[in-house]
Amino acid sequence: MPPLAALGVHRVVPMPASVVAASGAPFALSATTTIVVPAAGGEAGRIGEALAVLLRPATGFPFAVTSTDAAVPNGSIVLRLGGAATLSSEGYELTISADSVRIVAAAPAGLFHGIQTFRQLLPAAIEAEQSTHREASGWSVPAGQITDYPRFAWRGAMLDVARHFFTVDEVKQLIDILALYKLNTLHLHLADDQGWRIQIDSWPRLAQYGGSTEVGGGPGGYFTKADYGDIVRYAQDRYITIVPEIDMPAHTNAAIASYPELGCSRTAPDVSPNAPGAGLYTGIHVGWSALCYDKETTYKFVNDVVGELAAMTPGPFIHIGGDEVQVLTIEQYATFIDRVQDIVAQHQKRMVGWDEIGRAHLKPTSVAQMWRSDTSMAAVRQGAKLVMSPATQAYIDMKYTPATELGLDWAAYVELRNAYDWDPVTQYKGVTANDVLGVEAPLWSETVQNITAAEYLILPRLPAIAEVGWSATQTRDWESFRARIAAHAPRWRLLGMNYYPSPQVNW
Amino acid sequence: MPPLAALGVHRVVPMPASVVAASGAPFALSATTTIVVPAAGGEAGRIGEALAVLLRPATGFPFAVTSTDAAVPNGSIVLRLGGAATLSSEGYELTISADSVRIVAAAPAGLFHGIQTFRQLLPAAIEAEQSTHREASGWSVPAGQITDYPRFAWRGAMLDVARHFFTVDEVKQLIDILALYKLNTLHLHLADDQGWRIQIDSWPRLAQYGGSTEVGGGPGGYFTKADYGDIVRYAQDRYITIVPEIDMPAHTNAAIASYPELGCSRTAPDVSPNAPGAGLYTGIHVGWSALCYDKETTYKFVNDVVGELAAMTPGPFIHIGGDEVQVLTIEQYATFIDRVQDIVAQHQKRMVGWDEIGRAHLKPTSVAQMWRSDTSMAAVRQGAKLVMSPATQAYIDMKYTPATELGLDWAAYVELRNAYDWDPVTQYKGVTANDVLGVEAPLWSETVQNITAAEYLILPRLPAIAEVGWSATQTRDWESFRARIAAHAPRWRLLGMNYYPSPQVNW
Repeated sequence: MPPLAALGVHRVVPMPASVVAASGAPFALSATTTIVVPAAGGEAGRIGEALAVLLRPATGFPFAVTSTDAAVPNGSIVLRLGGAATLSSEGYELTISADSVRIVAAAPAGLFHGIQTFRQLLPAAIEAEQSTHREASGWSVPAGQITDYPRFAWRGAMLDVARHFFTVDEVKQLIDILALYKLNTLHLHLADDQGWRIQIDSWPRLAQYGGSTEVGGGPGGYFTKADYGDIVRYAQDRYITIVPEIDMPAHTNAAIASYPELGCSRTAPDVSPNAPGAGLYTGIHVGWSALCYDKETTYKFVNDVVGELAAMTPGPFIHIGGDEVQVLTIEQYATFIDRVQDIVAQHQKRMVGWDEIGRAHLKPTSVAQMWRSDTSMAAVRQGAKLVMSPATQAYIDMKYTPATELGLDWAAYVELRNAYDWDPVTQYKGVTANDVLGVEAPLWSETVQNITAAEYLILPRLPAIAEVGWSATQTRDWESFRARIAAHAPRWRLLGMNYYPSPQVNW
Repeated sequence: MPPLAALGVHRVVPMPASVVAASGAPFALSATTTIVVPAAGGEAGRIGEALAVLLRPATGFPFAVTSTDAAVPNGSIVLRLGGAATLSSEGYELTISADSVRIVAAAPAGLFHGIQTFRQLLPAAIEAEQSTHREASGWSVPAGQITDYPRFAWRGAMLDVARHFFTVDEVKQLIDILALYKLNTLHLHLADDQGWRIQIDSWPRLAQYGGSTEVGGGPGGYFTKADYGDIVRYAQDRYITIVPEIDMPAHTNAAIASYPELGCSRTAPDVSPNAPGAGLYTGIHVGWSALCYDKETTYKFVNDVVGELAAMTPGPFIHIGGDEVQVLTIEQYATFIDRVQDIVAQHQKRMVGWDEIGRAHLKPTSVAQMWRSDTSMAAVRQGAKLVMSPATQAYIDMKYTPATELGLDWAAYVELRNAYDWDPVTQYKGVTANDVLGVEAPLWSETVQNITAAEYLILPRLPAIAEVGWSATQTRDWESFRARIAAHAPRWRLLGMNYYPSPQVNW
């Protein structure tokens, strides 16, 4: 048996940077296993408690959490901050012997990621909610050492809550998936033609009226500020940054339906017979709506919205969309984006936009999210960083095959291997490793009405994108990935996560 | 091609009572199809609007709804109240010709069920949220006539929101499944050892404290009265009656943890290391908790709870549990149930209980839900009616096979055919057709933490139980069912419903 398999790494996704198997006996969870965190407690203490909460239901063991810097007794799982200088802020070392499990990281995020690896090394039954699922083999993990850290700093998914609304509970379920695969960014597409999904006190009709429907004519909905804060905290506890997006100047029909003075649009290209009110849109055509780029009301609106959004968002980024504008000339578009970029900067945030923002005059702190072409150079030449979301690989709202019902197909059919076999640095011409901040998998929601449908598109493709973002090129291998991901299906079933049983994997 | 297949009945579940294919051309939905409802509008008008909302997204057609009693133009879908005296309150006639679709029913519930049949006769793509999924064959339904009505009056499912809490949104997703399969009863198991899930103003800690956790130690939750009202209305719009259950005198630890004066229990048989507060329980053992049968405080509590529950429940039933009592003698138990039955009657409701209530002195209006044995005679001799939920067939929280992760297995492994191949009248000895009110499939939630996991247990078994409850014995056939249910998987995927791809079906 090869060393990697011996350490159970045949089931870890994303693939760790370095794995060394040891010859000793495995570590086994038992009724006396304790979790030891630093005496100071703090974030490491909280992570230790979260580990206990994770392990207790399936095992039925108590997992006492002890705060001490002293030597630890046999049978402990030890979390420590510190470790080698080579560990990045998200890296960790995981050392497993018969006597103990040690997870050492430079920062809490690394401890959290290390726990996800340890969790995946345990039998899938560790995800059960109650302890009738005892494994005959017990709860053991082979001895060895893993040293691990991410390739890219931005590893994300995007959920479009505008085309269909998702509840706070559903967003938390997505965050749980991100956490399991060491993703650290959740981009929420909060406004589009079909719905406005975030409370803005200075423009209250945006959510109240603009949020009242969705694609297909359902009831829509929106996040109150309390809801949004709940999502932000749930994500923070899992070392995930929320990046809120208000798409503009196009994709703004919901705002314009709420405040007609904002609009300089064409009319909708199709009827919306299910729309519950004037100006609301429930179809799926794009590009036809636009804010007035030449009216001061527009910039007051943008300033108010970005200001409230910045105040409730602890992360450094505000995403302003900027894609698929059909109504403005390039000059008009650049004028608009330049002013919006200044507004974002005034609120102490960095602007992110879809790749079209390369046509404007970008600050080097701005980030272009590449989705369709090699227009990347326009942004790179200005010093902006790139987040890579090529639609042909990373758009996880694309159908898997012509036969799968959910998803669209305008960019490609994206089977699992397509989502896996690409490289963020070489995907587009002229890009260097230094230009790439990371990767992100967007899930547009025209076809999906709830998280169960979304998960059919998310799993197993998002873990593939997670490995593209985390794992070094030399550790990545399709045959290895398809073997490892197969072991995750029982875990998903226990966790209540839907998935597509791709025929490319022997589940 | 046999007539049933010609009418597309090869995909209708539950199987209709009578199907006659016609030789004419099919009816096809088009951009000019209108929906015609009676001039008086009323419930039939609302149902017509709901049909339009159902058909618009996938087709992109406007489906104007017209209120008139006059002759209708070609290309109409006509909803009419009236029809043959033989149609029961839930029956309908569906007549399809090239010119029109006519649905006639004695009552609105029949119109609603007729629409579900029409929906299932359309291609599965009718469930899509947007109109890119055009079928090459168009939206056509073969000509013919269906006359249909249910075998049993009570056709239900139960969701245990006590062991794990489910959000209002998740309960609505379950209601959507019930509606699709002509089920008319949703029994909500609102309280158990692990959680109390309904706001009771006179005993506020029940929900606030007793609802604060769940199996596995998660955050739990509860329905406010507004939430519960929202569920009741959503169900009513789909002709589904909510039956609320507060289990007593056992299965009451959450109440006792909130108000210790109610309790005369043994201590919990296992530890709950994840429980967030004193007395709360997150394990899955049963039978150890009990209300004090001999204290007046207990009956004041029962009266207050039943009173508030009756006031917010328009349906005629209150379920009081009554199962798995280990702490009381038979006489003590009967004393308790007799008094509770009187309290339920004082609040103008009929008592439902699990089959053990046959040990008490039952009113003929009371209903015993049979789950495990042939103790049915004890209830039947007293004139009570039975709802049949034999655990070996109808407990859809049982594992499908030893290899499927979710579910328990104490009663049986319940593969799809087990859920299908049984008869409510012959299941238990001494029961006659006149004793059986209907069937119900309970979903206990020890192992399932969200609706996606629940749906893996619900589909395809609940449609099987729905056919057991709706279809006449002579129309039921396993080979026919397994062929018809296979056509539902694409529908489930589009609707965002998870399911178990049973190897007994050629999906």
